[in-house]
Amino acid sequence: MKSDIEIAQSVVLKPIAEVVEKVGITFDDLELYGKYKAKLSFDKINAIKDQKPGKLILVTAINPTPAGEGKSTVTIGLADALTKIGKKTMIALREPSLGPVMGIKGGAAGGGFAQVLPMEDINLHFTGDMHAITTANNALSALIDNHIHQGNSIGIDQRRIIWKRVVDLNDRALRKVTVGLGGPLNGVPREDGFDITVASEIMAILCLATDINDLKERLANIVIGYRFDRSPVYVRDLAVEGALTLILKDAIKPNLVQTIYGTPAFVHGGPFANIAHGCNSVLATSTALRLADYTVTEAGFGADLGAEKFLDIKVPNLPTTPDAVVIVATLRALKMHGGVTKTELSEENVAAVKAGFANLKRHVENIRKYGIPVVVAINEFVSDTEEEIEVLKELCAEIEVPVELASVWADGADGGVDLANALVNTIETQPSHYTRLYQSDDGLEEKVTKIVTEIYGGRGVVFEKKARNQLVEFAKHGWDKLPVCMAKTQYSFSDDQFALGAPKDFEITVREFVPKLGAGFIVALTGDVMTMPGLPKAPAALNMDVAEDGSALGLF
Amino acid sequence: MKSDIEIAQSVVLKPIAEVVEKVGITFDDLELYGKYKAKLSFDKINAIKDQKPGKLILVTAINPTPAGEGKSTVTIGLADALTKIGKKTMIALREPSLGPVMGIKGGAAGGGFAQVLPMEDINLHFTGDMHAITTANNALSALIDNHIHQGNSIGIDQRRIIWKRVVDLNDRALRKVTVGLGGPLNGVPREDGFDITVASEIMAILCLATDINDLKERLANIVIGYRFDRSPVYVRDLAVEGALTLILKDAIKPNLVQTIYGTPAFVHGGPFANIAHGCNSVLATSTALRLADYTVTEAGFGADLGAEKFLDIKVPNLPTTPDAVVIVATLRALKMHGGVTKTELSEENVAAVKAGFANLKRHVENIRKYGIPVVVAINEFVSDTEEEIEVLKELCAEIEVPVELASVWADGADGGVDLANALVNTIETQPSHYTRLYQSDDGLEEKVTKIVTEIYGGRGVVFEKKARNQLVEFAKHGWDKLPVCMAKTQYSFSDDQFALGAPKDFEITVREFVPKLGAGFIVALTGDVMTMPGLPKAPAALNMDVAEDGSALGLF
Repeated sequence: MKSDIEIAQSVVLKPIAEVVEKVGITFDDLELYGKYKAKLSFDKINAIKDQKPGKLILVTAINPTPAGEGKSTVTIGLADALTKIGKKTMIALREPSLGPVMGIKGGAAGGGFAQVLPMEDINLHFTGDMHAITTANNALSALIDNHIHQGNSIGIDQRRIIWKRVVDLNDRALRKVTVGLGGPLNGVPREDGFDITVASEIMAILCLATDINDLKERLANIVIGYRFDRSPVYVRDLAVEGALTLILKDAIKPNLVQTIYGTPAFVHGGPFANIAHGCNSVLATSTALRLADYTVTEAGFGADLGAEKFLDIKVPNLPTTPDAVVIVATLRALKMHGGVTKTELSEENVAAVKAGFANLKRHVENIRKYGIPVVVAINEFVSDTEEEIEVLKELCAEIEVPVELASVWADGADGGVDLANALVNTIETQPSHYTRLYQSDDGLEEKVTKIVTEIYGGRGVVFEKKARNQLVEFAKHGWDKLPVCMAKTQYSFSDDQFALGAPKDFEITVREFVPKLGAGFIVALTGDVMTMPGLPKAPAALNMDVAEDGSALGLF
Repeated sequence: MKSDIEIAQSVVLKPIAEVVEKVGITFDDLELYGKYKAKLSFDKINAIKDQKPGKLILVTAINPTPAGEGKSTVTIGLADALTKIGKKTMIALREPSLGPVMGIKGGAAGGGFAQVLPMEDINLHFTGDMHAITTANNALSALIDNHIHQGNSIGIDQRRIIWKRVVDLNDRALRKVTVGLGGPLNGVPREDGFDITVASEIMAILCLATDINDLKERLANIVIGYRFDRSPVYVRDLAVEGALTLILKDAIKPNLVQTIYGTPAFVHGGPFANIAHGCNSVLATSTALRLADYTVTEAGFGADLGAEKFLDIKVPNLPTTPDAVVIVATLRALKMHGGVTKTELSEENVAAVKAGFANLKRHVENIRKYGIPVVVAINEFVSDTEEEIEVLKELCAEIEVPVELASVWADGADGGVDLANALVNTIETQPSHYTRLYQSDDGLEEKVTKIVTEIYGGRGVVFEKKARNQLVEFAKHGWDKLPVCMAKTQYSFSDDQFALGAPKDFEITVREFVPKLGAGFIVALTGDVMTMPGLPKAPAALNMDVAEDGSALGLF
């Protein structure tokens, strides 16, 4: 069996300019980064702005388990299969963070014969977007500390700065730091911390901005902390939104690459799916929609977090609404939701499939609340048995949701043709009637409550004291009109990561709200949210190297 | 009068592939970053490895003053003038750090009509080299802290880690920090600090490495700190040199851009000129030498630091030795060395020119000690008077050094033709007989003493207690065979930044040595060396913006 990187390196890539011809992009529309990566120029993005958008397909998943679901792999394979059956298709994916690549997770460019390429570049520096975001984020930090050091005319309370520094690495030692030490020449001492770059609000902003001016306005709206009188301090008070926009002027342009099968793919932006909305950029998705007849995109984590945020936060910024949602599951993951431990996954367990189906079922019902048709994709594993598959198909039939097996990891485009046909049939026969879960005027408390009761299936919400105070304060600022971005464990519908399947009758506890005025949403924190991962005992970095010919070794 | 960025943006650039055709580079040899920037492939670098190198010209300067000397501007203008008089010429320059661009210094891509373009890109993210170095540096830090957190089997003494983190920003608040706070899940608390990226040893390594394998070996040799038993810990002990090399695999490839006049230019690498050697990459310079008949390059700061390090540290890694050295001065700067204050520079002062000439004279004599012919370039200012120019010419005649005015800032290539002709004439009539100042076996004490007495013109060296102990310890490790890299103020031959002109009879105090085993030199610290600049009260960032059409505003 070949590894992902061996498969990737065995593919003879076409020049990216050739790959994108079929969606109407010419060589002059591209800003090349080597032969196989390019950014799309704003001239082109603007030129097609009035073109009618094609069909939009969101790929999401059941709650993730250690068994793995392969959402990106199915997204890529599905798009390749759509290409294969003659549909003009594009992909819009998130770009990976380098930190986890060095750590434990491996890359995020799909797997097997469903990959976006060149995977080495995509998993390392790619076109520099992450670095630009890191730089913009930390330039803002330096400018804040410099403002305080130079006299603090704004009156920023250094104890109430909520803007943190970032690095695009897994580095637990930077989670909590003190800066400004060593005497008066080194600034004002204060507590600070580093998040991983993808957790920066600037990442979320980049992914929601519709053009350069919108980007600048969103950057100006960032709340960096509070004055001694508790009033919020915005980036516009520091007058550095122009400089931050300048740092990001290329990063905001969507990146084009290709799949193994030659489907053109935007891979652009990758915000966290807990404290942010977890979707690739609005610019990439919107542009794909105008260039292709079918755009396949994905959202982070399971559908309770990823799809909910896609539908309530991202979709209002897109030129169209989703025509269908594909929910990815594996029989192994369903068995884990049904109570099987990881070591016993290879044994047939029909009862566990039945029990675990409750998780999938609730996600299907949730998406239907938004008025969008659903298709279930079973990402095939060798351990899947006939009996298990049959039972799952019966369960899906009971709730009248189309279900197809996909073997895109092993078979590439061929392994996704049934799924692609089912999807096209669904789109052509079932119209989508997207409706939002909540309205802007609903207020934060009501928004959170709707998400918890209608999507998570919980009984209600407990707001801790700090959160209750913030409900009052945020309403005073008018921030309660913004959408809510839930930061919750991805493993369960509830805020208890061990409550698998479809837990009922639980309450969600909201500890604190965090204003993300630039991104344009309010984060609701439930439990501890990790915004800076650590490295494992034996990091992936130990196996990495460069071959004599300059090619990458040890990436996966 | 147009600003630098206005001039830059008024130029219609040629595609870089077209610019480099004249030096024998084809489209397939390039890895494009947009239309006007490219990296040169290793295939091409290797293919020309046995080609005979052309002439090498180093541009250096008198000790810098606040009046400005315009070394990069003269370097670029001189190369354009060589092109104009029919010589196949390339430039090899350092790439700027983004930190100072946001701060006070402005960019580093030349000025007026002697610029490398696109200056906005070069001054911002360029091809991502700085970001790759930042990432490699900080990945190493994360891996060190992770090693300690995961059991510390190597026995690293967290109080004696000398490897610091970096950001490519001016950020004084990060000079001294404590990391690993917040409890056992966040690692082991310790003191740390951030340097600016260009001060990272990895930058120096990238600039001295001759290929990927040499890069990896140098990375493996980095000393990151000491064990509890005081023995040095190398990167190879952590076994992560492969991963660091992987992060740098594209950054090590030289970047190609063009001047306003169309001369092809390598702009690659930019180490600090105090704690490092201050020259662009060996790979860029070596490759330029093999492609062009004349290669013009520069070194940091004044000739006492920049040229000395170029000649004693960089040249032994090049395929040839310099054929001539150009020393840049301005009448304004000479007047400052002659005792005039900045506010009185516009007034004629012949006596001050005579007094300040002592600085220039010592630099000329120093370069001659290396056996290399010298040409003096006077970078013209409108305030220069006939009388001052005449006196300077007479003084140069007395020591038999050719001197020419250069008005490349105002006139571009035309303004450098006299200088170019004088230079070609010097090279064709005066053979160069390069000899090193010291030998490998000399020992650290002797090396420092030779630099101080023969180049700086000082009486001798005082080694403080820590440095004396290190002389013994480093000799024990065999590190005394390495070249010395002096970290000294750039403003004076002495270690007193206010002693302008040509001070005599002074002693240099060496406080401490720092082993840079990867770079392959030992840094000698004299006085306080700033490795992380701060931002001024009104940072340049306040004036930066992006125009409606996406172009940069407020860069200079």
